[in-house]
Amino acid sequence: MNYTQLAAEALSRADELATCTEVPGILKRTFLSEPMKKAHGLVRGWMQEAGMSVRVDALGNIIGRLSGKNDQAFLTGSHLDTVPDAGKYDGMLGVLIGIAAAKAIGANNLPFHFDTIGFSDEEGVRYKMPYLGSLAVSGLFQEEFFARVDENGITMADAIKNFGLNPADYRSAAYDFTSVKGFAEVHIEQGPVLEKEDLALGAVTGLVGQSRIKLFFRGLASHAGTTPMPGRRDAFAGLSELSVFVEKYAHSVPHLVATIGMAQVRPGGANVIPGEVYFSLDIRHGEQAKLDEATEVILSQAEYIARHRHLTLEIETREAQAVVKCDAALVDKMAAAMAQHGHKNFRLASGAGHDTAILSKVTPTAMLFIRSPGGISHNPIETVQVEDVAAAIEVFTEFLKSV
Amino acid sequence: MNYTQLAAEALSRADELATCTEVPGILKRTFLSEPMKKAHGLVRGWMQEAGMSVRVDALGNIIGRLSGKNDQAFLTGSHLDTVPDAGKYDGMLGVLIGIAAAKAIGANNLPFHFDTIGFSDEEGVRYKMPYLGSLAVSGLFQEEFFARVDENGITMADAIKNFGLNPADYRSAAYDFTSVKGFAEVHIEQGPVLEKEDLALGAVTGLVGQSRIKLFFRGLASHAGTTPMPGRRDAFAGLSELSVFVEKYAHSVPHLVATIGMAQVRPGGANVIPGEVYFSLDIRHGEQAKLDEATEVILSQAEYIARHRHLTLEIETREAQAVVKCDAALVDKMAAAMAQHGHKNFRLASGAGHDTAILSKVTPTAMLFIRSPGGISHNPIETVQVEDVAAAIEVFTEFLKSV
Repeated sequence: MNYTQLAAEALSRADELATCTEVPGILKRTFLSEPMKKAHGLVRGWMQEAGMSVRVDALGNIIGRLSGKNDQAFLTGSHLDTVPDAGKYDGMLGVLIGIAAAKAIGANNLPFHFDTIGFSDEEGVRYKMPYLGSLAVSGLFQEEFFARVDENGITMADAIKNFGLNPADYRSAAYDFTSVKGFAEVHIEQGPVLEKEDLALGAVTGLVGQSRIKLFFRGLASHAGTTPMPGRRDAFAGLSELSVFVEKYAHSVPHLVATIGMAQVRPGGANVIPGEVYFSLDIRHGEQAKLDEATEVILSQAEYIARHRHLTLEIETREAQAVVKCDAALVDKMAAAMAQHGHKNFRLASGAGHDTAILSKVTPTAMLFIRSPGGISHNPIETVQVEDVAAAIEVFTEFLKSV
Repeated sequence: MNYTQLAAEALSRADELATCTEVPGILKRTFLSEPMKKAHGLVRGWMQEAGMSVRVDALGNIIGRLSGKNDQAFLTGSHLDTVPDAGKYDGMLGVLIGIAAAKAIGANNLPFHFDTIGFSDEEGVRYKMPYLGSLAVSGLFQEEFFARVDENGITMADAIKNFGLNPADYRSAAYDFTSVKGFAEVHIEQGPVLEKEDLALGAVTGLVGQSRIKLFFRGLASHAGTTPMPGRRDAFAGLSELSVFVEKYAHSVPHLVATIGMAQVRPGGANVIPGEVYFSLDIRHGEQAKLDEATEVILSQAEYIARHRHLTLEIETREAQAVVKCDAALVDKMAAAMAQHGHKNFRLASGAGHDTAILSKVTPTAMLFIRSPGGISHNPIETVQVEDVAAAIEVFTEFLKSV
């Protein structure tokens, strides 16, 4: 099998998919938008050409099935929707590699059916809610979601009808997981780790958990000229002290990341000492205990800073996303397939969310990461190397034979 | 003389002046606005009642003269315009104390004429340019300023005409400073120093110089989940490090203040590492050499931070306002008048700008600060204590007899 040729074909298909966009000149393709129909047309053709039978479920997931010898199924897939001004590979490449693997394997050569799913929504752009596609496939979609409206006032139910589907059928989108062996997703890393390690591929052990906190420090706004340094209650100085701590602390804990991505300084005049800052904390780790500890340590430091600076600390919102663990046996099989083709047994946690996070609730999962040059994603300059994609198809095909 | 009675009268007059506002419910009175006419009517009446002759110059400054025995003049004054949602004392109280002093002294009891000036603009709200009144009085007003437009498109020249004045006469607003002995301004401190020292009054030695700098740190925006801590180029982390340094350094240099009052974090998503921060530095000191050194030290630290964090530093604008020194002899006379009435010989630099900064370019100056409870100004809760105002009238009257 010529994996380089399959990889080149996948990349050329990614270019074609990128022409299906809501906004000319950039790539933006959201849940059940008009360009998603054109994308489905392309994907359907490629799936059929690979010997797959194709269906679209009630939530607009497109599913190609390569028939196998028994009634069980192994699933792969990723999402076909994008962020605004997206790159061409985040999501789509996983679908294209599923199709390439099917083509490499051929029908009735696996004991189980092999399904490649193009999820209709993972980014959550249109309905401000991610994972619509994988929630439906996993049987976790809630009927109440249908009432949500997009920015044009179109309900999710109407969007589904406009796409030619029947929302009332949503339960039928769910697999019967008693006959599913597992789910494995191939995805670009969207980060710099594999590039730094000089590796094409990595086996994903799980998805990091996340603490998302929005909070305020409040002090006293006063005149920058007439207020001496002692006695100031500068909210931004408090945030700066916290920010320096957060960075230093995150460096000290292996695999912890912690970020202050949003900070609004008020009132914001150059000659006024900040009386208030509103800011975000994003803390992630692959181990739940480490994440919980880090969140605790950082919030305790924020309280300490508030106390010694005579500020008040208010936590506005605090959301938690639990650590997701991939299936140890499947991850081992992925790593074994990598080793079999000369790749280092390199494992990492995913710092971003993926459809795998949802499927993990209902079936054993694994993921294969492909090196992201520059670590750039959610950006039109997102790229991959053809030889890395060839390696991914080869390893994923090997993996499928072992599950 | 019952100074407490004069002080109570001045405070009741401040309440009356505060009713002259462009925005009902708050105090906002800008350069030559309609409510300024009503304010002039009140001030004119009080000046006349104190035995002063009254004129309004071509820039809308209202000037009351208490005649003296020779042709020289000594000037006092402050501004009658306000910031939006202002307090009742910033500016106005200096005019009212000038009138109270005239009333206490009486006509022809000083060797020189004693002029109290209500400046038409110091805050610069209407034409985004401060000190219009004192620039005219000082002979420093430039004809080109007339072309500036307010937010309704009205030129400064038209605003002057609409107020019933002739802009062409602007040169006549300037004093002949060969016959002016000096200028002394009474003002609330607008800061917490006198309150902390438990003092009613302070003699102002000068006005701090100021470095106003706006600048950028630029790094690389990337995914907060997928980008490990090592190798991040987080612009906000750079600013936080600088902010902690600025605060620590300013604490270490007596009388230095340094403030980051504005910071805009971009792109500003909670899950995106900041690629850019745009922020302000406001650095002030009463000694030019100390100010220059502090500015140098802080900018060098910003450059060092940029270098070690692989950020770029861009200085967008850099403005300097030189230190203004009051006249040593007049300051000594102010302090002597304070001492004569049992006040501590306490001297401080003004951290804010005042009309005195402009008059200092053309005549010897002094200032007398009155305690600001809470250190609050530019705020409706700005306040003063009647006994402090009484002390200020008494000391200022004493001072006038000594100049």
